[in-house]
Amino acid sequence: MRRALDAAREAVDKALPNPRVGCVILDPAGTVVAVGAHRGAGTPHAEADALARAGDRARGATAVVTLEPCNHTGRTGACSEALIAAGVVRVVYAADDPNPVASGGADRLRAAGVDVEGGLLAGESERLNVAWTHAVRTGRPFVTWKFAATLDGRSAAADGSSQWITGPEARLDVQRLRAACDAILVGTGTVVADDPRLTLRDDENAPLPYAVQPTRVVMGERLVAADARVRDDDAPFLQLVTRDVDAALAALAEHEIRHVWLEGGPRLAGAFLAAGAVDEVVAYVAPTLLGAGATALSGTGIQTLADAVQLDVTDTTHVGPDLRITARPRPLAPTDEDRS
Amino acid sequence: MRRALDAAREAVDKALPNPRVGCVILDPAGTVVAVGAHRGAGTPHAEADALARAGDRARGATAVVTLEPCNHTGRTGACSEALIAAGVVRVVYAADDPNPVASGGADRLRAAGVDVEGGLLAGESERLNVAWTHAVRTGRPFVTWKFAATLDGRSAAADGSSQWITGPEARLDVQRLRAACDAILVGTGTVVADDPRLTLRDDENAPLPYAVQPTRVVMGERLVAADARVRDDDAPFLQLVTRDVDAALAALAEHEIRHVWLEGGPRLAGAFLAAGAVDEVVAYVAPTLLGAGATALSGTGIQTLADAVQLDVTDTTHVGPDLRITARPRPLAPTDEDRS
Repeated sequence: MRRALDAAREAVDKALPNPRVGCVILDPAGTVVAVGAHRGAGTPHAEADALARAGDRARGATAVVTLEPCNHTGRTGACSEALIAAGVVRVVYAADDPNPVASGGADRLRAAGVDVEGGLLAGESERLNVAWTHAVRTGRPFVTWKFAATLDGRSAAADGSSQWITGPEARLDVQRLRAACDAILVGTGTVVADDPRLTLRDDENAPLPYAVQPTRVVMGERLVAADARVRDDDAPFLQLVTRDVDAALAALAEHEIRHVWLEGGPRLAGAFLAAGAVDEVVAYVAPTLLGAGATALSGTGIQTLADAVQLDVTDTTHVGPDLRITARPRPLAPTDEDRS
Repeated sequence: MRRALDAAREAVDKALPNPRVGCVILDPAGTVVAVGAHRGAGTPHAEADALARAGDRARGATAVVTLEPCNHTGRTGACSEALIAAGVVRVVYAADDPNPVASGGADRLRAAGVDVEGGLLAGESERLNVAWTHAVRTGRPFVTWKFAATLDGRSAAADGSSQWITGPEARLDVQRLRAACDAILVGTGTVVADDPRLTLRDDENAPLPYAVQPTRVVMGERLVAADARVRDDDAPFLQLVTRDVDAALAALAEHEIRHVWLEGGPRLAGAFLAAGAVDEVVAYVAPTLLGAGATALSGTGIQTLADAVQLDVTDTTHVGPDLRITARPRPLAPTDEDRS
């Protein structure tokens, strides 16, 4: 299973809107005869990839897969049927398929007489696909809210200047994390004020070597000018003409968007947070002080300290001179007495 | 010298308004015959302490001291004279004495025929006495500005609630760092608003086991009520009836205060920062989000990002669920092109 997890991880940085999956085929003696992986929408599933490589040697073999084989025919055929047809006699998988449309593969295999075991290293498989698992389970995308601020919490100076709060290392790090998402979301206010490109580019504006540009999503009821940079041909563009977070999430799910990178502005971030729609926070803190200027977050409606959104910090990393703090909102309402 | 540095460090957590100093006496064969250290104002200097322990064995011996022996008679006699009188023939010291009143000890020893060598591990000796060295060199105290804020930079909620932004571990950590200073400074606004004690106490209000309470200093022209907690008998109290930072620093220096722990409010911190009087920043960042409320810093007069105060982060430590970031303002004006 570790070999299959590694195959999934190494094959591709992201397979969104699909999960990253790896598959290893072993002959009855336990020798690896083929390793396969999924490389993104429109390419074969990991099982199909491995079976194609194994050929006749799949007959009587064991398939080790990082996700329960799918049971529905989408862009590709159902993997459960392909495994049965290839003569595989045993399937070991990690995570159950949380997708109600695709699940049932294990049952289908068992009905065909295949020996099936699930759950081995399921947690590792889910960590490979955190956003996808969340999106398929809840029916709405996983939202990462990113902001940059000075040590005293300012995201812009008094005169509005905000380029650049953080150093070049942090800005490149943002591109890397943006690339792992399938949409970058900002409000119309940000587009009107800054006219950002929202594409994966370096500081000299040169394209970065990422195969797939995330969809640029602008949310809000204000008009996005025809010549706005977010409308250029470098990446897909989508406007959500609503101020309602739930409506926006539903629309994103309709577009098969699983992982949204939310960049602001402050009121949009506040609306997402107030709606309980922020699943992860990535804060870049610069070692600078301003003493005036806009903050990264507003409009949450939180009046008193006891109602503050509680986070669990999952990672703290120095990125050049800056600090990146990654945190997840606690799933429960704030009730912890030790901070009261 | 390492033995002498250890002696200085182990003898006492702080010796303010004096430096921490250690002294080792070795006989001509190189055997340690006595170890001494300074334990704070009114107690013997390290050399005197070591000489008293060595007795007659000091004759013909070498004295290894972490700071150039003093050359003036204050609360205790001049150490240079004491070393000469004891018959010490060689003195090795680390840091030069930056105090113009007390320096000249090395010259005095040489004039008396003692073999003198300075500079060995001088940096380590200065690190033992960062605030003292700064204060004696510049004639004004070393200022550590401390603040606590949420991840989005709020030091209080919209309704003013600020107890407690951080967890109990961070609050205890603050007491420990406060204890290393000889003054705690706030503005009159903070006293009027919060009526703080500003003493070293735990969350249940019990005194903490620190021998010496820092002086509680309130700065500003507003009246501090006779029954304000900062005026109680638990620690010294001092009001600086001025809004001028330089005047305040001069007054603190007159009171022999070497290390000030500045706690706010935001405008007082801004005034110190604008005056170039903040030597160290200690920020406690809580893993919470508010979206509204006061920030930790205001009134710096900084209008644009290019004029932001640049810091060098010297330490990042997790303290319970919170993060403590320690930083020092860069000595030069911001000119670094990589952040422009």
